[in-house]
Amino acid sequence: MPRLVVIGGGAAGMSAASAARRTAPALDVVVCESGGFAAYGMCGIPYYLGGVVTEAENLLAYPPEEFRENRGIDLRLHTRVGLIDQASRQVFVSQGDREEVLGYDTLVVATGADPVRPPVPGLGHDRVFTIRSLDEAIRLRRLLEGGVVRRALVVGAGYIGLETAEGLTTVGAEVEVIEALPQVLAGFDEPAAGVVAAELTRHVRLRLGSRLDAVGDGDGDGGVTALVDGSEERTDLVILATGVRPASGLLIDAGARYLPDGSVVVDSGMRTSLPGVFAAGDCVALPHLVLGEPAWVPLGPAANKTGRVAGTVAAGGTSAFTGVVGTAVMKVFDLEVARTGLSLTEARAAGLDAVATDVTSRSRAKYYPGSSPVHVRLVHAPGGRLLGAQMTGREGAAKRIDVLATALQAGFTVADLAALDLSYAPPYAPVYDPVLLAANQAVRAAANAGG
Amino acid sequence: MPRLVVIGGGAAGMSAASAARRTAPALDVVVCESGGFAAYGMCGIPYYLGGVVTEAENLLAYPPEEFRENRGIDLRLHTRVGLIDQASRQVFVSQGDREEVLGYDTLVVATGADPVRPPVPGLGHDRVFTIRSLDEAIRLRRLLEGGVVRRALVVGAGYIGLETAEGLTTVGAEVEVIEALPQVLAGFDEPAAGVVAAELTRHVRLRLGSRLDAVGDGDGDGGVTALVDGSEERTDLVILATGVRPASGLLIDAGARYLPDGSVVVDSGMRTSLPGVFAAGDCVALPHLVLGEPAWVPLGPAANKTGRVAGTVAAGGTSAFTGVVGTAVMKVFDLEVARTGLSLTEARAAGLDAVATDVTSRSRAKYYPGSSPVHVRLVHAPGGRLLGAQMTGREGAAKRIDVLATALQAGFTVADLAALDLSYAPPYAPVYDPVLLAANQAVRAAANAGG
Repeated sequence: MPRLVVIGGGAAGMSAASAARRTAPALDVVVCESGGFAAYGMCGIPYYLGGVVTEAENLLAYPPEEFRENRGIDLRLHTRVGLIDQASRQVFVSQGDREEVLGYDTLVVATGADPVRPPVPGLGHDRVFTIRSLDEAIRLRRLLEGGVVRRALVVGAGYIGLETAEGLTTVGAEVEVIEALPQVLAGFDEPAAGVVAAELTRHVRLRLGSRLDAVGDGDGDGGVTALVDGSEERTDLVILATGVRPASGLLIDAGARYLPDGSVVVDSGMRTSLPGVFAAGDCVALPHLVLGEPAWVPLGPAANKTGRVAGTVAAGGTSAFTGVVGTAVMKVFDLEVARTGLSLTEARAAGLDAVATDVTSRSRAKYYPGSSPVHVRLVHAPGGRLLGAQMTGREGAAKRIDVLATALQAGFTVADLAALDLSYAPPYAPVYDPVLLAANQAVRAAANAGG
Repeated sequence: MPRLVVIGGGAAGMSAASAARRTAPALDVVVCESGGFAAYGMCGIPYYLGGVVTEAENLLAYPPEEFRENRGIDLRLHTRVGLIDQASRQVFVSQGDREEVLGYDTLVVATGADPVRPPVPGLGHDRVFTIRSLDEAIRLRRLLEGGVVRRALVVGAGYIGLETAEGLTTVGAEVEVIEALPQVLAGFDEPAAGVVAAELTRHVRLRLGSRLDAVGDGDGDGGVTALVDGSEERTDLVILATGVRPASGLLIDAGARYLPDGSVVVDSGMRTSLPGVFAAGDCVALPHLVLGEPAWVPLGPAANKTGRVAGTVAAGGTSAFTGVVGTAVMKVFDLEVARTGLSLTEARAAGLDAVATDVTSRSRAKYYPGSSPVHVRLVHAPGGRLLGAQMTGREGAAKRIDVLATALQAGFTVADLAALDLSYAPPYAPVYDPVLLAANQAVRAAANAGG
């Protein structure tokens, strides 16, 4: 019986395994997951830490038995793959002290991404955590429930750092967020980042342009001394949220092609450059439909979708992943923060001639109570082609960004956007939706640029 | 000085007047509005009746002085136009007892739509109201504040009827809604209509397939006797919400081309078939981008946009309205109810080979608290071309429909939809957004239909 081995039991890996099983019912499907959980929603971890999600098990899409018993998938937890031997089509596997060589006909590598650990002394301290695996999150939650964390230091104001900061305030901690860059959320331009920073400072202490230099023991109470910008701070917990990078070491060691950022190159069927070896999820580069070239955009929906494609194709079926436009949303306390496509900074870094149009509108009709501001930035070429968008607001930003994501996939100009027939009722939007107001202003800007 | 006369001071008319003023600062711009208010949000009337909007003046986009003093527009309220004499380019105008003949160089007709009054005896009773003009709404609100309306009968379960029913329950009335058709919201297919009916019956008495036969006096207490399906009912108020039709009499009498439903034919510059005469808003037929022909879809956003185009072009500028796809949303008590494109019924009535895919999903990640069901219907050709969509849900339906509206304008297939890179975060969506789940299922249906 031919065998598919899947490395990694996250969203991509379990999607691949399930898709392969549906495609080829007779295939032997083995999943090796290094941690103690599979198929869990990694994006839910900050909410689990904050107690909004009560049990770790709630984060599981399905329990292990569903895969083992109902789907006939040999799901092996606590099972680490040390090496891919592509010549012999074998992987070297260890589970505790037990080692095994596992042959494969096809292989799906879905090893995800790893937290970046900056070269700071003392990060081995047992009060220093990253937010990536559910196993680590369970240990952290236990610590939080122990009542010893009155203060916490979050290092990094990217989306994981900010979501975790919110979770920690939910359980009553006094939180400080430090960020080496001069703004929060590097993927956003300053107007949106400024709105987010203002919201943050209502709930946490925020220090931009600040660095963690070292971590050491506290005063014998189990706490931590953090050296920040040369000054010592006492805290009870350090969260390292300084970014992630592709966990592509196994594939690179095996000879797979990869980009300078370490993300693995795949085709639309999620085939790597190694015959019979597929990759999916947060370790691969995907076609970026706005950039017109592969880019590393590690996010949950694409992990699920690329896993499904990889598993289907690896099992002999037909499927294709067409690409991403870089859509993301997050909740920052009472604010919805969303983006799609390129920021102005990203567009210019990619050599594109880009301008931005900023409009502040509102979430409901002027006369309808409960309205709040919606900030929209459109990033577009001077001639009008839409390149990206950012939105923030207390309501009406999170899913409104999807209109722009759809417009990007369609290759719309701002004039196409302005022509959209968007829904209107007083409780949900002004009669000119914020997207239309921004588009109208961008059309005028484009007309002036052209004239 | 050349003169533009605008007939109708609603959203379309005032948009036209303002756009004309911007385009041609020297133009003499006169607006004749038969009622006592101009530039008010008609869609807000149900919320004004319910007290959610406290003052009638809140519904005004701008007060009359803004137009008269700051924009130099000769806005005449209580001013009725009785006739368009296209040969002499004059309109015959009356204001109370005063009559006037007003010459024009260009004319914008924005007379909107009138409520349909079915041939039922007794509709002249002073407790029978329609929901269209702010003048009438103010009288109704006064009646409601008088405390005499304990029971109300709403005739017609279209969107105006349902929004008004909600407004009346907000002020404490016991509301009965009757509808001659076997379902609520004729523009929706049964699955969505069924969800809406279930929500309605939590708040009002709903009778489908029921007719109002006559209205008569009550027992001398000022109330009403309504004859419904042959049985007498006592009530304190009757709301007639049995639909609207184009208020196009003036234009038709003047010889303008119109469709069988009475809506006036215009080109992309909102020119009617009469030289120098433009029309905009709820009285015109607009290009329907899914049907590929003009259709009458009287809704607020298009009224604003077409008014702006008409005013710009009438004043000598350049502008064009490209069309609608039929997007609409309404709040029905705690439910968001949205549609775009064609319903299955409408698609088949138009001779299109259409099928529907129905999916019930959720508004948030499975593990995130507060999630509620989101029902999605996609209407598509068997080969996959998207034709329309409907959505209902307690959250996440109102603006999510705009993704489908954008996809319709782009001419997407359900496979294009399934490839969308939509935003994901646990508080706002499942990792496979309801749109993606529905699209995936439609893709499978299309594949089966093709195989």
